Amino acid sequence: MGASLENLATPSLILDETIMLRNIERLERRLAALGVSARPHLKTVKSVDAARRVLRNAKGATVSTLREAEVFAEAGVTDILYAVGIAPQKLPRVLAIRAKGCDLVVVLDSLDQARATAEASRKAGHAIPALIEIDCDGHRSGLAPDDPKVVEIARILVDGGAELRGVVTHAGESYGARGEASLIAFAERERDAVVVAAALLGDAGFACPVVSVGSTPTAHFARNLIGVTELRAGVYVFFDLVQTGIGICGLEDIALSVLTTVIGHQHERGWIMIDAGWMALSRDRGTASQTIDQGYGVVCDIDGQVLDGLIVTITNQEHGVIALRPGSGAKLPDMPVGTMLRILPNHACATAAQFDGYHVLTTSGGLDYWTRFRGW
Amino acid sequence: MGASLENLATPSLILDETIMLRNIERLERRLAALGVSARPHLKTVKSVDAARRVLRNAKGATVSTLREAEVFAEAGVTDILYAVGIAPQKLPRVLAIRAKGCDLVVVLDSLDQARATAEASRKAGHAIPALIEIDCDGHRSGLAPDDPKVVEIARILVDGGAELRGVVTHAGESYGARGEASLIAFAERERDAVVVAAALLGDAGFACPVVSVGSTPTAHFARNLIGVTELRAGVYVFFDLVQTGIGICGLEDIALSVLTTVIGHQHERGWIMIDAGWMALSRDRGTASQTIDQGYGVVCDIDGQVLDGLIVTITNQEHGVIALRPGSGAKLPDMPVGTMLRILPNHACATAAQFDGYHVLTTSGGLDYWTRFRGW
Repeated sequence: MGASLENLATPSLILDETIMLRNIERLERRLAALGVSARPHLKTVKSVDAARRVLRNAKGATVSTLREAEVFAEAGVTDILYAVGIAPQKLPRVLAIRAKGCDLVVVLDSLDQARATAEASRKAGHAIPALIEIDCDGHRSGLAPDDPKVVEIARILVDGGAELRGVVTHAGESYGARGEASLIAFAERERDAVVVAAALLGDAGFACPVVSVGSTPTAHFARNLIGVTELRAGVYVFFDLVQTGIGICGLEDIALSVLTTVIGHQHERGWIMIDAGWMALSRDRGTASQTIDQGYGVVCDIDGQVLDGLIVTITNQEHGVIALRPGSGAKLPDMPVGTMLRILPNHACATAAQFDGYHVLTTSGGLDYWTRFRGW
Repeated sequence: MGASLENLATPSLILDETIMLRNIERLERRLAALGVSARPHLKTVKSVDAARRVLRNAKGATVSTLREAEVFAEAGVTDILYAVGIAPQKLPRVLAIRAKGCDLVVVLDSLDQARATAEASRKAGHAIPALIEIDCDGHRSGLAPDDPKVVEIARILVDGGAELRGVVTHAGESYGARGEASLIAFAERERDAVVVAAALLGDAGFACPVVSVGSTPTAHFARNLIGVTELRAGVYVFFDLVQTGIGICGLEDIALSVLTTVIGHQHERGWIMIDAGWMALSRDRGTASQTIDQGYGVVCDIDGQVLDGLIVTITNQEHGVIALRPGSGAKLPDMPVGTMLRILPNHACATAAQFDGYHVLTTSGGLDYWTRFRGW
């Protein structure tokens, strides 16, 4: 397999399709058993080729930018949730995407956003559907499940000419959870928050067809999703060192890596210099707060086999330093200038975003290229 | 000025050309007084439009990737230093760029790289010029100035059919310096390292026409560059919060900012939510180790006026959280959903790299767009 990578310029982004498909199937099996639909988050892949595989058994998609919505709608995805709180200035773009036949749904958590969405709907003569964001763990946006504003917002939307589609939450704090019991508790907290909010909306006379939860950690540990209609997750497609640190996957489940070349040594300091710095690996240090700090990534050989004790400890823009993990009993291997290596990323979303495309090790043993896009 | 930004989609990258030109002139005046040539590092701007302004009085350019070399050579830059240690696999691309009339120079610090460069030169019948990298502060790559390998490398290059162009160093540790005396000492250490290496090469009978130093901090504090022929710096063009923290510039000298929109609030937590997360601001936390930790950036109004005590404290992929800097006596201002703001970046190179182009506030009061490129 590694043979086909030898002629690539470095740094390059490598995607192992076999591992990716295994990760997708793993979550599909879970969701089938739990009886909820999947709405994968495409912010991780940002690629139409990858999205085709991710969405094959999903009811719709989640995106983090209107640019993603536009690209995936153009590629034929007809059911998309834009999961970042809507700015009033963005409503014309939302209407334009909807006018092309994509059921794009917005998210909001304030009376002002509800009024703006209702007003834009009235002006366009077209009801924009919205989910009310619920805060389940103090992580980011959203209202408490029992905040009276939830019902107020529903009323503004429905009376004002927009559409109340349901409620949505994200257990972002689950990234800090450790151990099965804690992860199961986070999943239950996520479920509980939206189910309570949906019930209060029902009591007030509002239909709430969508009850949406999701994060990669809770998706893999939920034991019961009664009352939930759909689950969102994104990074599970590739996995990464942060997910390994939480305990969701092993190193062998990480589908993404950065191909790099050795460009020098500082023997006295125990450093091997590579041509992948933070421009290639990203500045993400998500494992810094975990039990095992993986620096800027775990080092593998060109075939993807993990090399004992080696991590990227320092990055400059286009230089990386490989050294032994502090406390490692391993010995620094001899790696001549020109040796090619692969680095497993801390955070797949951040590392992939540094590249214009994936060099794909396909299931049939070939090498393909899938373009990525970016921007807003 | 701010009026023209109101119709831009957010997040967007804003560049104030007036500030940029002032920063460029400031370094040009210093280098003229010190009697050395400028070789600006274009890894910061990655834009042909910006490079035209940066290079107007420079003798050549520095780049961090061969892609930069290719783009700028195509745009007419004929004298380029590729300042990352050469991998043997990249020599054919170096030769291809040189064959188009650009004097592209490589950097190396090992016998193996020297042998590979000599061999490629012989095979091509064309002498590839190389600078030997000297380590002045233990920061990254390079040989000690008096390492016998410096002369060995020179011999391999010259005897093997390549060209010894000179020596190069970079005082990367100067980013950790504080106070004028320390910065002056770093600049002197940088100068001393390459001047010593050049003298030893001269003693061994090797011409050493180029003696190259550079980093933005040392460039602004060097008192004497005797024996140095050229100076490289990159981030001075835009400046950023890290440079402000070192003491090189003020907030009013930062030419780059990210335009963003308020998308919500968490009033009890004192949070204002914006649509610029780490995808827009980058994950760079370069001010975390400085006296004033600026989080993910300093908050300004749409006209670029700094708002007292406000920084971006948390980022997710497309969400940012604005809050008061811990210990700030300021009061959280009222900012309705839809309010537009500008965020000054920690690290200009990293933040600019997240965007495909600059929306430029021009010196004539208009709004222009300069594309950026990326990749390797």
